[in-house]
Amino acid sequence: MAKVKKTPRPKAETPKGFRDYFGAQVTERTEMLTRIAGVYHRYGFDALESSAVETVEALGKFLPDVDRPNEGVFAWQEADEGDKGDWLALRYDLTAPLARVYAQHRNDLPTPFRRYAMGPVWRNEKPGPGRFRQFYQCDADTVGTASVAADAEICAMLADCLEEVGIPRGDYIVRVNNRKVLNGVLEAMGVSDAGQQADVLRTIDKFDKVGEAGVRELLGKGRLDASGAYIDGVGLDAAQAEPVIAFLTSKGATVAETLANLRAAIGDSPVGADGVSELEQIADLLAAGGYGPDRIEIDPSVVRGLGYYTGPVFEAELTFEILDEKGRKRQFGAVAGGGRYDDLVARFTGQQVPAVGVSIGVDRLLAALREKGRIGTQDQGPVVVTVMDRDRMADYQAMVAELRAAGIRAEVYLGNPKNFGNQLKYADKRNSPAAVIEGGEEKARGVVQVKDLILGKIIAENATLEEWKERPSQAEIPRDQLVPHIQKLLKGQG
Amino acid sequence: MAKVKKTPRPKAETPKGFRDYFGAQVTERTEMLTRIAGVYHRYGFDALESSAVETVEALGKFLPDVDRPNEGVFAWQEADEGDKGDWLALRYDLTAPLARVYAQHRNDLPTPFRRYAMGPVWRNEKPGPGRFRQFYQCDADTVGTASVAADAEICAMLADCLEEVGIPRGDYIVRVNNRKVLNGVLEAMGVSDAGQQADVLRTIDKFDKVGEAGVRELLGKGRLDASGAYIDGVGLDAAQAEPVIAFLTSKGATVAETLANLRAAIGDSPVGADGVSELEQIADLLAAGGYGPDRIEIDPSVVRGLGYYTGPVFEAELTFEILDEKGRKRQFGAVAGGGRYDDLVARFTGQQVPAVGVSIGVDRLLAALREKGRIGTQDQGPVVVTVMDRDRMADYQAMVAELRAAGIRAEVYLGNPKNFGNQLKYADKRNSPAAVIEGGEEKARGVVQVKDLILGKIIAENATLEEWKERPSQAEIPRDQLVPHIQKLLKGQG
Repeated sequence: MAKVKKTPRPKAETPKGFRDYFGAQVTERTEMLTRIAGVYHRYGFDALESSAVETVEALGKFLPDVDRPNEGVFAWQEADEGDKGDWLALRYDLTAPLARVYAQHRNDLPTPFRRYAMGPVWRNEKPGPGRFRQFYQCDADTVGTASVAADAEICAMLADCLEEVGIPRGDYIVRVNNRKVLNGVLEAMGVSDAGQQADVLRTIDKFDKVGEAGVRELLGKGRLDASGAYIDGVGLDAAQAEPVIAFLTSKGATVAETLANLRAAIGDSPVGADGVSELEQIADLLAAGGYGPDRIEIDPSVVRGLGYYTGPVFEAELTFEILDEKGRKRQFGAVAGGGRYDDLVARFTGQQVPAVGVSIGVDRLLAALREKGRIGTQDQGPVVVTVMDRDRMADYQAMVAELRAAGIRAEVYLGNPKNFGNQLKYADKRNSPAAVIEGGEEKARGVVQVKDLILGKIIAENATLEEWKERPSQAEIPRDQLVPHIQKLLKGQG
Repeated sequence: MAKVKKTPRPKAETPKGFRDYFGAQVTERTEMLTRIAGVYHRYGFDALESSAVETVEALGKFLPDVDRPNEGVFAWQEADEGDKGDWLALRYDLTAPLARVYAQHRNDLPTPFRRYAMGPVWRNEKPGPGRFRQFYQCDADTVGTASVAADAEICAMLADCLEEVGIPRGDYIVRVNNRKVLNGVLEAMGVSDAGQQADVLRTIDKFDKVGEAGVRELLGKGRLDASGAYIDGVGLDAAQAEPVIAFLTSKGATVAETLANLRAAIGDSPVGADGVSELEQIADLLAAGGYGPDRIEIDPSVVRGLGYYTGPVFEAELTFEILDEKGRKRQFGAVAGGGRYDDLVARFTGQQVPAVGVSIGVDRLLAALREKGRIGTQDQGPVVVTVMDRDRMADYQAMVAELRAAGIRAEVYLGNPKNFGNQLKYADKRNSPAAVIEGGEEKARGVVQVKDLILGKIIAENATLEEWKERPSQAEIPRDQLVPHIQKLLKGQG
């Protein structure tokens, strides 16, 4: 037997790029996911929870910006069969597993198959500040229908989800575009070379930054950027660039105007005409369902992940301003997005299956709600029953049993009760609304003391003597009035 | 550049030992976890969600029955730094991560620290029928107090959880024992050799199977087992075996009687006396909280994972009978367990931190509720608005928008609408309560047809002509009565 070396103590740390979530961070996300699941369910979507682990083969290589094999995922080889074990990996999103599930179970699943899924995904990326290697996704997809009614419905559902989690109408906008319209623009330009198409797409993506004139320069000979560096242009002539400019500036005051502008931009392109017609149908369906342009609008400037999508694309943006780390106002930005994709299931079955889906960024939504002060960051703590007499633990447990039976969060202090100050410090750390005190003398008289800890804090910080007198933060009450007194106190704290 | 080989199609399969959960399988578990979290929260426990990935170093090697390093977990090495990257692994339970979290954040956490955690854990075991490599755990632990009030409280909380998820009083029992009592029995026997102690523990574990006489034989010279094989005994003399027998048969008609019997069994052992006194305190605290022996009882036959625990141990058992796969009646058995452990945090900090916790087996609980018919296995499907006229999709979307706004789960059929029979088959597959039909003729008259699909099924299966006449499964209603009519129909379906 080998000698056992004394091993040093392990480090108590999460791996780099991972983190733990405490208290309200967990419960607020759970609450948000529950609300979103409620909307998804009401729209007819069924829950699906696929395994967190997939074969590398089934996952495929769909991660953006990743070239090397297995790069971007956490993967390992099954040890069982020596070198021949399967390579397994943690899922990097919820769409690749959906494609696998649909291909595996397609004979038993209804068509179309509407499913929602929520849970962690993992990315093997270099961690950085605010960049984590495990995060939540919250998706809904309709698989097996080419009808744009499915796309329209998902846009409406996205708007409903945002309102359901506390983003009021007016504070968000769902913007819809169509990859086919963009293909039509490329057709109208006469740009058929794949490399040149990619250059044009990249230029379109810069419209927000460089504006119309900048795009003209970049599509032509090139442009001096703000830093003084010269950026080479795509090399198109001015006439060729026109459809792009028409496309980028096509947003009109009404849906009809926008659609007319788009029709002009795509010229005779059949795929472009198809795309504009789909956008028109989507707008009509949404209008019929009561979703006007105050909630969902056709907007040609949406260019998210266009390489991945094959038809309509959409994203939800929060329109209110927040202050960035330097105190400057900026838009909060995108919190959800999605679109139509057709190739994922074909990898497995050889048959193209049309699908459309949306992914809501719950972590960004939670950040937005926190930013606006619409959710707190701390859970309400329990009522703490303090321990004045270690031998009467049963009395104290009876009190919390009564409180809990009335639905009130409560606990007996279970640390060392010797130092009473420590008990109140603990209650403070727990964000406790009230402390209950019953010493031997109180016990003999059949009373308990109840300290209102929230009021106590307010008084300590800023109350005048008048207020203090009027509403003392500590009250002596009959023991049998404990539950109603605490109920009233909690109600008063609101 | 290397030539790109044409790769064969990937297999659409979960890795061996993993599975997907659909519809009600997901929502029922979510519902159960929500209910349990509600009870944990009411008891003052805070949510914690630690990362699914830990360093192998931090996880340690606490998996039962596993000797080889890294065996039992899914592990891989960080590629970043060549051969020096950290080894990472998926958590195999929620207790090892708790110890890491507590050690890492102990200066910021309240003491005692009460936390609950729920989520998947992963075991790299050989998969088999019904044995999965990813499953849910649902734990609550109190870290940082040696008070047995913490143990009593967790037993009470466990009873509350079971009732909260639908196991009525009388259908379960929480049984409590104490590892210290068993140590006392070993002391009373004069067995101090570690190997012999382990032999005695193994024998005690066989009490259920071999009975009192069998245990006597196994503690002595040995025993012929049912297969005819001779099992060597521990080699103790008859007098030495007595404390074990006394211990195993100590359960009395009342708590006081059981405790008296245990006191006799442990003789003069100080640790044994300590253990019995702790059980007595627990029983008193539970009685004060209203938790009598109909819910929680002292039971010396509980011998779960005794190696791991250092004090009180407990388990919850469902007491009703179910039929096994061969149609024989058997007890459903254990659904939760836990106890006191003191060594986990010390691995990191060198300081022993007392802790006690419970883990509820939600998958077994769900199986039990299904077995008793207390939860269904299928979600209620959406109301399906059929498509009679492809060009009037907007009309149909308006109907589902109305239904959803009233909180009713509803969808438009989005498959190919050509074959109406397929639309009804789809509704059937979705377990849909009703189908809505509006052809051109209905549209002109301002009416819709509503098919009660549940009643339709019942009638098709077993109704008499009388019933059919009285309550037809299809009704024509004014279009503006759609929502109230469906509401009434759903209410009637119960």
